[in-house]
Amino acid sequence: MHIFLNGQILPEAQAQISVLDRGFLYGDGLFETLRTANGVPFRWAQHWERLRRGADFLGIALPYSSETLRGVAGELSARNRMSDALLRLNLSRGAGGRGYSPRGADKPTLVMTLHPAPPFGAVPPGWRLITGSSRLPAGEPLAQFKTCNKLPQILPRAEPAAAGADEALLLNTQGHLVEGAASNLFWFANGYLCTPPLASGILPGITRQVVFEVASALGLAAKEAIITPEGFLQSEGAFVSLTTAGVAAVSELDGRPLPPSPLVERIGQGFQEVFQHETMKNSS
Amino acid sequence: MHIFLNGQILPEAQAQISVLDRGFLYGDGLFETLRTANGVPFRWAQHWERLRRGADFLGIALPYSSETLRGVAGELSARNRMSDALLRLNLSRGAGGRGYSPRGADKPTLVMTLHPAPPFGAVPPGWRLITGSSRLPAGEPLAQFKTCNKLPQILPRAEPAAAGADEALLLNTQGHLVEGAASNLFWFANGYLCTPPLASGILPGITRQVVFEVASALGLAAKEAIITPEGFLQSEGAFVSLTTAGVAAVSELDGRPLPPSPLVERIGQGFQEVFQHETMKNSS
Repeated sequence: MHIFLNGQILPEAQAQISVLDRGFLYGDGLFETLRTANGVPFRWAQHWERLRRGADFLGIALPYSSETLRGVAGELSARNRMSDALLRLNLSRGAGGRGYSPRGADKPTLVMTLHPAPPFGAVPPGWRLITGSSRLPAGEPLAQFKTCNKLPQILPRAEPAAAGADEALLLNTQGHLVEGAASNLFWFANGYLCTPPLASGILPGITRQVVFEVASALGLAAKEAIITPEGFLQSEGAFVSLTTAGVAAVSELDGRPLPPSPLVERIGQGFQEVFQHETMKNSS
Repeated sequence: MHIFLNGQILPEAQAQISVLDRGFLYGDGLFETLRTANGVPFRWAQHWERLRRGADFLGIALPYSSETLRGVAGELSARNRMSDALLRLNLSRGAGGRGYSPRGADKPTLVMTLHPAPPFGAVPPGWRLITGSSRLPAGEPLAQFKTCNKLPQILPRAEPAAAGADEALLLNTQGHLVEGAASNLFWFANGYLCTPPLASGILPGITRQVVFEVASALGLAAKEAIITPEGFLQSEGAFVSLTTAGVAAVSELDGRPLPPSPLVERIGQGFQEVFQHETMKNSS
C-alpha cells in the first residue's frame, strides 16, 4: 500500500511518524473516512467541512487545501489501483513538548490511506447489535467532531458480546441510546423516521445527512427524538447509517428482535442511487 | 534525546512508528508519567499497577515485565544524563486493520521517554485555576485508567482563558468539579480534607494516594465528597496534586479567590519528605 504523509506518497513501510506526535501520545487529532467509487470520494465537501470545523475547534491549522487533498486522493487511488475503497484522512497536531498544553506544537501531521472496502450495494441483511458499556457525555462539545479519541467506540467492539455482533450501540450519561460505535441510529415510530438530536452527544454523520435527504425525497416525515433501549425495542423497525455500509437494517439488540420495516429497504435503495449518481466517473 | 522503542534505545530522530499504529489513529493506548530523582522513578510499582490494570481492561498485552522496564528507565536516565526528570511510558495496541475493532492488532508499541522536569521542592505559590468547558462522563469505566484519549484534558489548556492559568478544572456531566486536567483536587471543609470519589469519573492519581498517606500521618481526617464550583469557592482552602509538581496550593478559580490554608504547606512538606526518602540513591 502507498500512503500520503505530509506531502509525500510513500510505501507503507516508510510512512512513519515520531513517537512524540501528539496524535500518538494523546489522540490529539481528527479523522474522516470516505467511501470512494470509480476513484471519486463520496461527499468529499461535507467530510472536508466537518474536518475543517473540527480543526478550527481544536486549533490545528490544516496544512493543505481541500483541492490539493482531493487531488491526492485521486493519485492514491491510481497508485494503489483501488478505485472502490475506503479513504482515510488523519490530521494530528504533530509533535510538541511533554504535557497536555498544545503550545509549541505547530507542525500538524496529515496522513491519507486507502483501504479495501466491504461489499456495498444492496441493504445488508439485518444486523445484530449489542449495547456497549461506555457512556458518552451528553452535551460534550467535542462529540460533534470526529476526533482521534475513540476508546469509547473501540471498547464495545472488543467486549466478548461483540463476537457475534455487527455493531455496538452506545448510551449517553442520561441513559439514552444515541449512536452506534461507527454509525448513526434511526428507527420508525408513530409514522415518523426518528434519530437522536446532535445535542445528545453524537457525531453528525455524513451518511445521516444523506438519509435525511433521501427520506425527504421519499416523502417520509423525519424528526429528532430521544429514546431508551426499551423504547427502541418497541419501535416499528430500525437501521443504522454509516460510511462503510450505507444503510443497514437492524434485526436485534442484545438478542431481542426488532421488526423488519419495508421502509428501510426503500431508504437503502434511495441512498445507493444518490451514491452511484454522485460517484459516476468524471462526476467531479 | 534517546528514546526506548520496542526493545531498542534510539536517537529521537529514529524513534518512529507506523502511521497505522492505533495509538495514532484512535488514541488506543495508555500512558504513565513518573517523576525521577537520582535516576529513581518515584512510586514505580503503583504506576506500573495502574498501567497493568488498564492494559487488562483494554485487552492489550504488556510486551515487557515491570522489572525489565524499570531497568530501561535507569538506562535511559544514564544515556540522557538526566537523573531528575519526568519519565513517560506509552503503550499502544500497535498497528491493525482499519476500523474500531481491535481484532488482528496484536503487536503493541511500547515507548519510554525522558523529559526535563519543572523545579520541584517547596510548595508552589498559589495556582490560578480555570474551569474548562469539557464535561467528563460520570461513571464511565474508562476514566479509571490513564488512556491516550486526552482531548477533554487538552482543550481546557488550549482555551484562551488558559493563557494566564496554571491548571484547568473539569466538571463531570452531573455538574460536579471532579479533577484537574493533569491533577487531582483537594479542599478543606468542616475540618475534613476532601477529594472527589473515584466513581465521579476521575483518574486514581498516584500523588492523590500519597496525599492520603501524608494526611493520615499528620492526623488529618480525610474523606471523599462531591462539590460544585460554588461549594468549592466556599471551602477553607484547596490544592491540587500531580506528578509534575507534587502538591500545589490553589489561590483562585476563574478569577475568584480561595483562602490560603496552612495545612496545604504541611501536606506539601510531608509529600516532599516521602518523595526524597523513596528516591534516595540506591533506594531501589
